[in-house]
Amino acid sequence: MTEYRIAQGTVSADNETRMSALKADYEALGARLARDGLDIDAVTGKVAQFFVAVPSWGVGTGGTRFARFPGIGEPRNIFDKLDDCAVIQQLTRATPTVSLHIPWDKVDDPRRLKTHGDALGLGFDAMNSNTFSDAPGQEKSYKFGSLSHTDAATRRQAIEHNIECIEIGRAIGSKALTVWIGDGSNFPGQTNFTRSFERYLDSMKTIYQQLPEDWRIFSEHKMYEPAFYSTVVQDWGTNYLIATELGEKASCLVDLGHHAPNVNIEMIVARLIQFRKLGGFHFNDSKYGDDDLDAGAIDPHRLFLVFNELVDAEQRGAQDFHPAHMIDQSHNVTDPIESLIRSANEIRRAYAQALLVNRKALEGYQDDNDALMASETLKAAYRTDVEPILAMARLQAGGAIDPIAAYRASGYRQMVAKERPAVAGGSGGIV
Amino acid sequence: MTEYRIAQGTVSADNETRMSALKADYEALGARLARDGLDIDAVTGKVAQFFVAVPSWGVGTGGTRFARFPGIGEPRNIFDKLDDCAVIQQLTRATPTVSLHIPWDKVDDPRRLKTHGDALGLGFDAMNSNTFSDAPGQEKSYKFGSLSHTDAATRRQAIEHNIECIEIGRAIGSKALTVWIGDGSNFPGQTNFTRSFERYLDSMKTIYQQLPEDWRIFSEHKMYEPAFYSTVVQDWGTNYLIATELGEKASCLVDLGHHAPNVNIEMIVARLIQFRKLGGFHFNDSKYGDDDLDAGAIDPHRLFLVFNELVDAEQRGAQDFHPAHMIDQSHNVTDPIESLIRSANEIRRAYAQALLVNRKALEGYQDDNDALMASETLKAAYRTDVEPILAMARLQAGGAIDPIAAYRASGYRQMVAKERPAVAGGSGGIV
Amino acid sequence: MTEYRIAQGTVSADNETRMSALKADYEALGARLARDGLDIDAVTGKVAQFFVAVPSWGVGTGGTRFARFPGIGEPRNIFDKLDDCAVIQQLTRATPTVSLHIPWDKVDDPRRLKTHGDALGLGFDAMNSNTFSDAPGQEKSYKFGSLSHTDAATRRQAIEHNIECIEIGRAIGSKALTVWIGDGSNFPGQTNFTRSFERYLDSMKTIYQQLPEDWRIFSEHKMYEPAFYSTVVQDWGTNYLIATELGEKASCLVDLGHHAPNVNIEMIVARLIQFRKLGGFHFNDSKYGDDDLDAGAIDPHRLFLVFNELVDAEQRGAQDFHPAHMIDQSHNVTDPIESLIRSANEIRRAYAQALLVNRKALEGYQDDNDALMASETLKAAYRTDVEPILAMARLQAGGAIDPIAAYRASGYRQMVAKERPAVAGGSGGIV
Amino acid sequence: MTEYRIAQGTVSADNETRMSALKADYEALGARLARDGLDIDAVTGKVAQFFVAVPSWGVGTGGTRFARFPGIGEPRNIFDKLDDCAVIQQLTRATPTVSLHIPWDKVDDPRRLKTHGDALGLGFDAMNSNTFSDAPGQEKSYKFGSLSHTDAATRRQAIEHNIECIEIGRAIGSKALTVWIGDGSNFPGQTNFTRSFERYLDSMKTIYQQLPEDWRIFSEHKMYEPAFYSTVVQDWGTNYLIATELGEKASCLVDLGHHAPNVNIEMIVARLIQFRKLGGFHFNDSKYGDDDLDAGAIDPHRLFLVFNELVDAEQRGAQDFHPAHMIDQSHNVTDPIESLIRSANEIRRAYAQALLVNRKALEGYQDDNDALMASETLKAAYRTDVEPILAMARLQAGGAIDPIAAYRASGYRQMVAKERPAVAGGSGGIV
Repeated sequence: MTEYRIAQGTVSADNETRMSALKADYEALGARLARDGLDIDAVTGKVAQFFVAVPSWGVGTGGTRFARFPGIGEPRNIFDKLDDCAVIQQLTRATPTVSLHIPWDKVDDPRRLKTHGDALGLGFDAMNSNTFSDAPGQEKSYKFGSLSHTDAATRRQAIEHNIECIEIGRAIGSKALTVWIGDGSNFPGQTNFTRSFERYLDSMKTIYQQLPEDWRIFSEHKMYEPAFYSTVVQDWGTNYLIATELGEKASCLVDLGHHAPNVNIEMIVARLIQFRKLGGFHFNDSKYGDDDLDAGAIDPHRLFLVFNELVDAEQRGAQDFHPAHMIDQSHNVTDPIESLIRSANEIRRAYAQALLVNRKALEGYQDDNDALMASETLKAAYRTDVEPILAMARLQAGGAIDPIAAYRASGYRQMVAKERPAVAGGSGGIV
Repeated sequence: MTEYRIAQGTVSADNETRMSALKADYEALGARLARDGLDIDAVTGKVAQFFVAVPSWGVGTGGTRFARFPGIGEPRNIFDKLDDCAVIQQLTRATPTVSLHIPWDKVDDPRRLKTHGDALGLGFDAMNSNTFSDAPGQEKSYKFGSLSHTDAATRRQAIEHNIECIEIGRAIGSKALTVWIGDGSNFPGQTNFTRSFERYLDSMKTIYQQLPEDWRIFSEHKMYEPAFYSTVVQDWGTNYLIATELGEKASCLVDLGHHAPNVNIEMIVARLIQFRKLGGFHFNDSKYGDDDLDAGAIDPHRLFLVFNELVDAEQRGAQDFHPAHMIDQSHNVTDPIESLIRSANEIRRAYAQALLVNRKALEGYQDDNDALMASETLKAAYRTDVEPILAMARLQAGGAIDPIAAYRASGYRQMVAKERPAVAGGSGGIV
Repeated sequence: MTEYRIAQGTVSADNETRMSALKADYEALGARLARDGLDIDAVTGKVAQFFVAVPSWGVGTGGTRFARFPGIGEPRNIFDKLDDCAVIQQLTRATPTVSLHIPWDKVDDPRRLKTHGDALGLGFDAMNSNTFSDAPGQEKSYKFGSLSHTDAATRRQAIEHNIECIEIGRAIGSKALTVWIGDGSNFPGQTNFTRSFERYLDSMKTIYQQLPEDWRIFSEHKMYEPAFYSTVVQDWGTNYLIATELGEKASCLVDLGHHAPNVNIEMIVARLIQFRKLGGFHFNDSKYGDDDLDAGAIDPHRLFLVFNELVDAEQRGAQDFHPAHMIDQSHNVTDPIESLIRSANEIRRAYAQALLVNRKALEGYQDDNDALMASETLKAAYRTDVEPILAMARLQAGGAIDPIAAYRASGYRQMVAKERPAVAGGSGGIV
Repeated sequence: MTEYRIAQGTVSADNETRMSALKADYEALGARLARDGLDIDAVTGKVAQFFVAVPSWGVGTGGTRFARFPGIGEPRNIFDKLDDCAVIQQLTRATPTVSLHIPWDKVDDPRRLKTHGDALGLGFDAMNSNTFSDAPGQEKSYKFGSLSHTDAATRRQAIEHNIECIEIGRAIGSKALTVWIGDGSNFPGQTNFTRSFERYLDSMKTIYQQLPEDWRIFSEHKMYEPAFYSTVVQDWGTNYLIATELGEKASCLVDLGHHAPNVNIEMIVARLIQFRKLGGFHFNDSKYGDDDLDAGAIDPHRLFLVFNELVDAEQRGAQDFHPAHMIDQSHNVTDPIESLIRSANEIRRAYAQALLVNRKALEGYQDDNDALMASETLKAAYRTDVEPILAMARLQAGGAIDPIAAYRASGYRQMVAKERPAVAGGSGGIV
């Protein structure tokens, strides 16, 4: 029996005030969709089965190299973090799993994580290793790289860290390892592109050999940052080479904020699906660089177009298609719980909109090169306000019709602020 | 015996005025390089053996969708174009081959091209097909694509056009086919990414089967334009997939202006070399999009960094490494012959600078993670003024010390302007 | 009495089939908005009064520097173009005016334009001059610039052309001149930035002096293209300087596709409003460069955020705020009439969504730094499906509920294709 | 008498080993320049009088939001930092002043800074305020802004901090205040663009009133980061408005890394000079965002083109032209002293190259629209290897021919590492 930190009565009370409006909106939308031959309840049912993992690090306030401005009631450790994640799941019913980051979430006995998660009704998604910063007491520094470092002992240390992540993951029921490294260079000439990548591949092959039979490994590309001239795994082309070199259990993770300006990301998604190497997503949104903003906050149409590819693949039965869904955001100016709640909703919104696309009509327009009507077919789905579907999916699963409102009504943040002492903000002279 | 349109005496006379200065500069540079253990004559010798193909279409004045402003003495046909190309080779001795574009350069009997080229001392580089515009009288339109078109007959027409290009090429001694298509879409939904790419691959496989044993085929990626939402061959990742699907004779062509903003192109070059799929280059420069400006005009350091990878690969004996070098520019405000002369020089300049890199020292710094000295090692080579080496290489091969000056002194443009009637500029209402 | 080319009966018949669905959707939306204290009819009323001008050149098929693929029934001249524009207005009731381009739309007697427009119920919006291409017979070439040219006679010619545009405009009831020039450079050093801009300002001041008392003049900035290294009027900063130097009748025109990647355009709009220099818009959409795609096709959220600024300014009574609305697109793969119909709708859609923003709540959240709820307040308006409002506004004004469907049902394109002979596509060797 | 931390004998000994090579190279270059009518000693003399300020924060190792990897011998406080800055000046003779950052460099009595600087032969350049992070004990947080904050008390605190910076600056001989703020928003709707900017202007006007008569105030624009949707001072257009609103003592500071992708920065510099509002520079280099890499490391040609504008303005006697030169970089993978040494050299290199431009010839080519020769005129200057000039300028002023080599030979870093205890790296969970 799940022990929620927010009383279900609080949620129910808030829902009660919104019930009749939701019912009216849902019926009106249902009637409209029915005219197009769509069964709203079927759509709601599919949406209710769509889940996205929450990152443990996401419930803490993020920052930039210039500063971090903490909020109140910041989680002190992974157990507090799981508590916060459980609130998100309680209210949205869209985020039943948490993705951990080692060593940040490392505890003496991983079984304690499992027990705490079980009590909160939370499972564990992909494990994330960290060789982009130095942990206290670490022997070798990752200043000049980790899995691609010129020094064999440093590479070995990074490999062993990843293997440790797998071991922790096995103890708590995770089935995947996500590897993102910051390796690269700040100046032309600093590294040799080819030898760096050879070393990276060697290291990854060693990790891959330690992967349990039923696990998957995701490599994640990123154009730049923290390296500012070159990055070892800089784009999907390199990422595809990695997944191919490693083997069947390896595939590519797409973080929506890790691409060059203007790049057509939904097309990259389509290519990776076609060549059976789409591993999953780190959802977020961005305007400039890897801004890690809330999903759908800047360009919701782009998010929809990504989901349009996913639904298309799902419906045509694409092979080896079972992408992992994870959020990866930095919440610098909002309550992280609120940002994660709404991001989970936005991701489901894009999925719901994509489910509404009349794919048979679309295919016909595409075959006829009727560019305008093909485009309008996508837009008709996109502009549909599917909020009633999302709210009904939450409600029927025990969540909140308006999860932000219910969260605020619950006073959760003020409550944990009393338990959790304030932490100092960071400036640190990192400029 | 090559029949040059410019009298060698004109060239010699111009050279004479510059001989003593060149000698002094060459000696001074030689002395400096000798201090670093480098033999200037060896460098000059290597530079003299570096060649780049000139595009036949490059000797005409280019334009934009808004207008084309012709110059005087525009070439009327491929024979005029070959005459102009011969001038570039005469003065630079860096451009002994021409790359043709079909149907623009199509003549009734390809042997006439061969004869004209032979007389001018010109050979023929890669053939370029054109399925991005409709030729007069063409049965099917490429408005909605060519090799990836939804209509099988249109694809067939495009395939046959490429096969015809191979046939013309065989007749004139070419050994490669470059395929660049504009296929893509302007609106989300207009095309299905996956099916379009399947059709493209099918078409290319058919062409590949017709490729002579000793030929190569280059596919060329481009981020956007003429399609403004999606492009079938949009980046090197997709290009690599194509080359891999097709087979050993297929490799990737990198046009320097066809990438997203900020992308590290030299790294793409390194990856393609490492995975044995670098076919060659279309050299040019750009600041915003596919600006097709003169090579090295905007970011000469980037050009150097590309050549740094090429020389590194050459010197370490990378496998399957024999990239084709071609210029692809649009000369809108200069005399095209002048722009091509200096572009050939700039490309050789980057090559010469890359030859000066102390690679042994560089490797040491890289192994030591001495980022600053590694970076400085590249910069030391880059900032060397290698113009004396380039001039000497030209001079020793029979070319001009200052080819732009010699060209202007020759009065070639005024001479051909008398033979070639003025053509009207274009406005066309394309906005 | 307006003479429409499409029988109103055709429109009515199509409307009839959609009437009950529209009524149901409109009522459902009305009920929902009423819960938020909004009167749907008031919103519909405001939308019905929002108009956007259609560009005469937009009804012809556009192209790129690579090719132009014409459609059937292309307009042969400005009279055909006005006929096409009238169809757009008949069906959308959102585009009562046309923006002309000189010399493309020049006729012997401008009064003929006025008469034709009157018959079709069309007025004339801003005049557009053209000094970015050479008209046949023109004495001086604009190859190296126009209003900023180094040669005084060329500048004089360009100035006089603009004055002629004003004169034509006066004859047909226009009240504004839009000046966009392609002046700039392709290479560092080609022009002197400062002297070029001084010459430009001098030329514009001369034109400004000829501006009738009740006219406005709009200068339009663009980052690049057709110039690929520098552009004289490259951004809003320079544009603001121009408007300030000229005087009160001068203000800045913002074309949504003319900015650097990632730039926050809505913020530029806000700044120009604040400093009383927003002249108006060229609406379109883009993913890469100045792609000139249909408004709202790529990033509809961005269009909404621009209108959010416009509605905010309107409602707070910003001074000197009366922006002109114009579409400026290139229709390469669609029927231009269809693209313009839907673009007019998309622009109204963004306006309608912006009208739904609860500005009082928004201001409160902003004052409280409640970033999440402020953001959600905008999103709530954006995700509302306002199509019933748009359709009702069209219907009540005599237009079509589904103007694309009505247009296709009318057979207009096939009808004019019989009158207007097919034109050849362009390839032109512009590469 | 300046007390250098490195014995001048060490410098002299290193110089001795390089003297004959420098002499030979300088003579050869002198002979070449003489052929073009240039006096090398005159150029060297001008270079020797070109100075750039070093940022106090630059001598510490920088980091990213992901991690900071400290080096050995990190400065513990502003006195250590000044020691390090003095080494840079000792070896380069190009950096006689330091730019301070408050509160990072705040001490109980500013006169101690003056005394320490005097002993080291260092003066103080512009003061930098910091309202982008919260200092310990600060009453109001800058989480949601500072000078533009919605709360008057927070704005007041930020204003007073800037006034305090002025006061400290007066005590140590500074004559300028640089104001860079991080104010902005992460989400559409979070802030009202117009009201935020009004508040910012009000705050700045209050600061401006406190500015001593002989001081200047620089506002600095930045496209994004730390705010990821909108930034109050986002570009030069807004920056120009600020400088104009404030008055004559206010001008714009251009940080080379603070612009949108592809933007022509040298043109912005030219515009600000023309309208008398160029205050100065933060020099650095970047490939992707505000990468803060060593000046000239990525795109040295761009740096040259900026200096081409500066020299052009200097030589034509532009009014109100006296830009401040400052370095602003983040040294994450190099010894900060080494990076600053070479950056100072690179900046002088660009200046020296710009001095070599034949401006009379250039103007002629520009007037003739000889795009190619105008471009070649700039390139001829750019490709000149001016290292002998830079080295001679250093040598003659008492610095090092090869300052990096001399620095390494001195063992300075190892020496201070003994005095300064190691500090921990940062990971911080900022992701």
